[in-house]
Amino acid sequence: MDAVSRLLKPRSVAIIGASADAAKTAGRPVSYLVKHGFAGDIYPVNPKVNRIGDLTCYPDIASLPAVPDVGIVLLGADRAHLAVRDLAARGTAAAIVLASGYSETGEDGARRQKQLVEAAGSMRILGPNTIGLVNLTDNIVLSATGALEMDHFPVGSIGVVSQSGGILGSLLSRAAARGIGLSKLISTSNEVDLELADFIDHLAEDEATKVIALYVETVRDPQKFRAAALKAARAGKPVVAFKIGRSEAGAKAAVSHTGALAGADRMYDALFRQTGVIRAQTFADLLDIPVALSTGRVLRGNRVAILTSTGGAGTLVSDSLGVCGFETPAPDPQTGAALRALQTGDHAALDRNPIDVTLAGLQPDLLRGAIEALLASPSYDALTLIVGSSSLAMPELMASAIQDCLPLSDKPVIAYVSPHAPEIGALLTQRGVPAFAVAESCTVALGGMLQASRWKESEATALTAKVDVDDFPSGSLDEAQAKQFFARFGVPCARETIVETPAEAERAARELGPKVVLKILSGEITHKSDVGGVAVNLTSEQVGARLSSMAAEVEGKAGVRPKRFLVQEMVAGGTELILGMHRDPLGTAILLGMGGVTAELFKDTTMRLLPPQGGLSRDDALEMARELKTWPLLDGFRGRPKADTEALVTAIVAFSQMVAQLGDRLVEAEINPVFVLPTGEGVRAADGVVVLS
Amino acid sequence: MDAVSRLLKPRSVAIIGASADAAKTAGRPVSYLVKHGFAGDIYPVNPKVNRIGDLTCYPDIASLPAVPDVGIVLLGADRAHLAVRDLAARGTAAAIVLASGYSETGEDGARRQKQLVEAAGSMRILGPNTIGLVNLTDNIVLSATGALEMDHFPVGSIGVVSQSGGILGSLLSRAAARGIGLSKLISTSNEVDLELADFIDHLAEDEATKVIALYVETVRDPQKFRAAALKAARAGKPVVAFKIGRSEAGAKAAVSHTGALAGADRMYDALFRQTGVIRAQTFADLLDIPVALSTGRVLRGNRVAILTSTGGAGTLVSDSLGVCGFETPAPDPQTGAALRALQTGDHAALDRNPIDVTLAGLQPDLLRGAIEALLASPSYDALTLIVGSSSLAMPELMASAIQDCLPLSDKPVIAYVSPHAPEIGALLTQRGVPAFAVAESCTVALGGMLQASRWKESEATALTAKVDVDDFPSGSLDEAQAKQFFARFGVPCARETIVETPAEAERAARELGPKVVLKILSGEITHKSDVGGVAVNLTSEQVGARLSSMAAEVEGKAGVRPKRFLVQEMVAGGTELILGMHRDPLGTAILLGMGGVTAELFKDTTMRLLPPQGGLSRDDALEMARELKTWPLLDGFRGRPKADTEALVTAIVAFSQMVAQLGDRLVEAEINPVFVLPTGEGVRAADGVVVLS
Repeated sequence: MDAVSRLLKPRSVAIIGASADAAKTAGRPVSYLVKHGFAGDIYPVNPKVNRIGDLTCYPDIASLPAVPDVGIVLLGADRAHLAVRDLAARGTAAAIVLASGYSETGEDGARRQKQLVEAAGSMRILGPNTIGLVNLTDNIVLSATGALEMDHFPVGSIGVVSQSGGILGSLLSRAAARGIGLSKLISTSNEVDLELADFIDHLAEDEATKVIALYVETVRDPQKFRAAALKAARAGKPVVAFKIGRSEAGAKAAVSHTGALAGADRMYDALFRQTGVIRAQTFADLLDIPVALSTGRVLRGNRVAILTSTGGAGTLVSDSLGVCGFETPAPDPQTGAALRALQTGDHAALDRNPIDVTLAGLQPDLLRGAIEALLASPSYDALTLIVGSSSLAMPELMASAIQDCLPLSDKPVIAYVSPHAPEIGALLTQRGVPAFAVAESCTVALGGMLQASRWKESEATALTAKVDVDDFPSGSLDEAQAKQFFARFGVPCARETIVETPAEAERAARELGPKVVLKILSGEITHKSDVGGVAVNLTSEQVGARLSSMAAEVEGKAGVRPKRFLVQEMVAGGTELILGMHRDPLGTAILLGMGGVTAELFKDTTMRLLPPQGGLSRDDALEMARELKTWPLLDGFRGRPKADTEALVTAIVAFSQMVAQLGDRLVEAEINPVFVLPTGEGVRAADGVVVLS
Repeated sequence: MDAVSRLLKPRSVAIIGASADAAKTAGRPVSYLVKHGFAGDIYPVNPKVNRIGDLTCYPDIASLPAVPDVGIVLLGADRAHLAVRDLAARGTAAAIVLASGYSETGEDGARRQKQLVEAAGSMRILGPNTIGLVNLTDNIVLSATGALEMDHFPVGSIGVVSQSGGILGSLLSRAAARGIGLSKLISTSNEVDLELADFIDHLAEDEATKVIALYVETVRDPQKFRAAALKAARAGKPVVAFKIGRSEAGAKAAVSHTGALAGADRMYDALFRQTGVIRAQTFADLLDIPVALSTGRVLRGNRVAILTSTGGAGTLVSDSLGVCGFETPAPDPQTGAALRALQTGDHAALDRNPIDVTLAGLQPDLLRGAIEALLASPSYDALTLIVGSSSLAMPELMASAIQDCLPLSDKPVIAYVSPHAPEIGALLTQRGVPAFAVAESCTVALGGMLQASRWKESEATALTAKVDVDDFPSGSLDEAQAKQFFARFGVPCARETIVETPAEAERAARELGPKVVLKILSGEITHKSDVGGVAVNLTSEQVGARLSSMAAEVEGKAGVRPKRFLVQEMVAGGTELILGMHRDPLGTAILLGMGGVTAELFKDTTMRLLPPQGGLSRDDALEMARELKTWPLLDGFRGRPKADTEALVTAIVAFSQMVAQLGDRLVEAEINPVFVLPTGEGVRAADGVVVLS
């Protein structure tokens, strides 16, 4: 049994600094263990006390009669490392260090934290600055915090790992009030050793856990996180994460232009998407999505039946579903007939959706019949029940009727509770019908289920034979070199010739024509057009004179007379995109964006993290293009020709393989613009930047 | 006293069809009136019963000993009109008709509804199909619905009007659970007579009501709604509306291109904005915003102090505020010093925001001191208190400490309750500190307050002297006529000449050059560029030949040889916009949109309803331009020249005055594109459509 398993289900626990007063913080761990009937050994350690309740209290760790599986260290930051050292010396599997005053407080704290790590040696540490953990499956509380105190825990199949302790208490009390069952609750906080990924990895194997919910402030080890999240996904256990720090994204704007468009928070979007992690957009979603997923039911499409006995609330849910792209079609003829056969009510609206059964909501048999008909209907992928005021009178009958129907189908069944009636919501949730008091939560929960059922792990594209680029110099390549560089990795570039004189320019233009672009070629001047260094749509007759006037204009504006120029074929009829890379603590991302100033205003970019080995897959590359809000521009919008997405996908994959192969040698790379031409005509990189180390 | 006032506060109530069995629906109205100690006269009417409790029951309406102020009609749709007729005959002020089975059920119902209206004569009707109303201020329940039953109502200053009865019950129970006090609750439903606007108008004068909350399915009389909403706004009573039907917007896509971009639901956005109504985006917002506004406190800016004793929850609220554009600056030096003087705690983080007072959350004096310092600080416009688990132990002490500070400032103070603790939330709300269990709700509530404090009623621009356009024909004008039409109302248009031959085109181009646009001029062909009927950037040398080739190409594609052409000055260096109008049941809107295919993809348009008299004000026109997501394109984005917004504003106002003056004569009008040139260079309408009746 590994240390994490021991930590979550210890056979024995030592509490260092335990107090005999159960009302004090230091008295709580022993009191909690005893109260919940911990079956293993409890060893309080405190030199000033002999007994705590029925338990022997030991003067120090060395005196303990056996090696504890876990030590809870209640000492302050000034002494915690001594206890950790002694626990490690005895061979304890893991220590939980509750004290604060470590790296979160500055330099002195960071020093103390280092001391703590050294003291632990090979013993694992949870914390410091943690509020500990609760194993709800086995009713074991390893915490000193009142926020995790509870007489009866809501036991279920959602494992929660949080980087904030306070939030863990909030999740526990909110889940309990709603009848949402949890399996494990772990606060990792400073993560000096054990971290998010360790517990994802553990919960992926934990029999009691079906869904994993994460409260994330930062991912310290992206590769470890990726491996753990993928392990969970492969085990069929969805991971749902709420990540704080969305609004700091702007402040963390990266230096480079594309980096600024991307922003660090968006890297988490990429990381989560590529590892099958469903991102909770609000804190409430962090319970709403897991509770829906924990039913184990499967959402296969976006068509939802709404069964209601109250018109207003049905409309509310229907509207919210519609806003998020769900469909609420009317019953098909066969389903409609089945519904009509159930009752003879005058005003019942059974031919529309929401399906309004009016008073049938009070008659369990009719309710049962309607649910059966809707679950059996091939027109629906899920069922949302609306609980109105009239249902409040007989919650148990209603819940039973619903529960009876659940085994008939594995389609999701959720409930919206319209009046304030938390007990009914909790009752339904406990019976396997997740209930929500917020219409939008129904939509979010179903959205999470759809995302979970549609996720497919992407493959990396293996690296092709190593491309030799040793002949390129370090530093910034000039524009012509940059494109030769891209071309070597298989990205098609616009044809071009380097020239120095008007005559050379004219000769080149005749070859590349009918129309050409003329640009200065300079290592120093980066913003060519700002100094008049770009002219488009030139004929071979015009290009010579334009070269002379451009040289003069640039000299006037930039103070340097350009010596070399590029004559480039004029690429027309394509759509301009940007293809770049972005380095971030989370990894290296490939970035695709629509070109042009309007798209830039809308920040129309998308990203994928490079997989650990190889480049992006073609599927990923195509998905990126489809994710652009301006994708219709590539897809025949308003009579435009369809773009050559095959060639674009090939270019994205080639670019990603270039980034993957070169690693740190590639400091920066961006193609801006790359023209995507109509189907069959390919793509052309028209300008770009490469910086090599 | 008017009929609506009588309806809400009757001196006497007749209940037609009352049952002696209080458990039955028909027994409830009498039972509710008695239970809540109704001080006026209660007249049950039922020919089969002599007494109901202590009350005399009358055989019919004619036998009543006095004229009742209000009649509650409990009869079914087949007989309700008879009671209504009799009540009207006695001179009753208003009848509440609860029966369903009217226009909501089809043709027969519509006929019954007509019969009902005729029976009422000048008596006012609430309903039919309503669940009635509750006057919480005076403890009067006029309803037969269990959903509005409650032993003690949460009395306060929010008046609620709902077009759905079920929703009213949901709002009442949710408000009660959260300690949110209401003044009046009215369900209008079918609105055969009294409707939304009547009650807004009444509540605007109701002393007990400070905020009005609306649940809207449709606005039947936009002008009446506008007048009532403006009356409330002028009385300093904010109106908050949740409108259902956002997702049907797509389905209701209007026929014309700009109409489709606009969508009917967006018309409500315009109506609400222009009448000072704050739109609740979710159903939850419909309590969250009013409860914040009902404190009467004023939010003057977007800087929020967050005072917390638990780090995680503070971050959560801070993140949510940041996402929505609120600022959470660190304390200024003076405020920081005042905070530090309050305690000597080691780990307290008082120099950042969230301001973390750790254990001070448990010490009322310290809490009071911190609140005082933050409310007094010139760096903050509002204060959000975070209630963590540690505060749960002493809710009363905490609430008192907070309440003591409220009179020190009129800045908003709200609370976020992190653990599940509804009692604490209710306690705080009742003490004047609106409390929320959802971080995003804090942001929404403050957002609503900011919107309320910033709203300013716009003035209409008076119509200028009537422009004579009698010389224009009915039907579609051709492009040249359309621009002459716009020009007559003061919209500057691109210079152009109508030509028929290559020679005429060359002559025109020499006058309009250096570069010109050549277009076919045809009443039949609307999509000119689809048939090759547009060529740009031509010199006077090129234009003649181009005319000949264009004529041939168009003939080939459209089957008609164009006879007339427009030679137009080539407008360069501007930004393309669309200026149009949209007719809708809610009124006529002026629409401004960014031109170009990318902006179209992002549906970058904005709308304003024409005021009842005159055109849009310059302020409104400028605000429209600023609302475009692509406004930066007009405002110097990435080194572009600033656009001539003064001229754009003038053009929008002129266009709106044109629409206002012409009324129904103008079937359709759109300028697409209008070029906005750099500052000082004006605007040019380059193409457009006018259809006259």
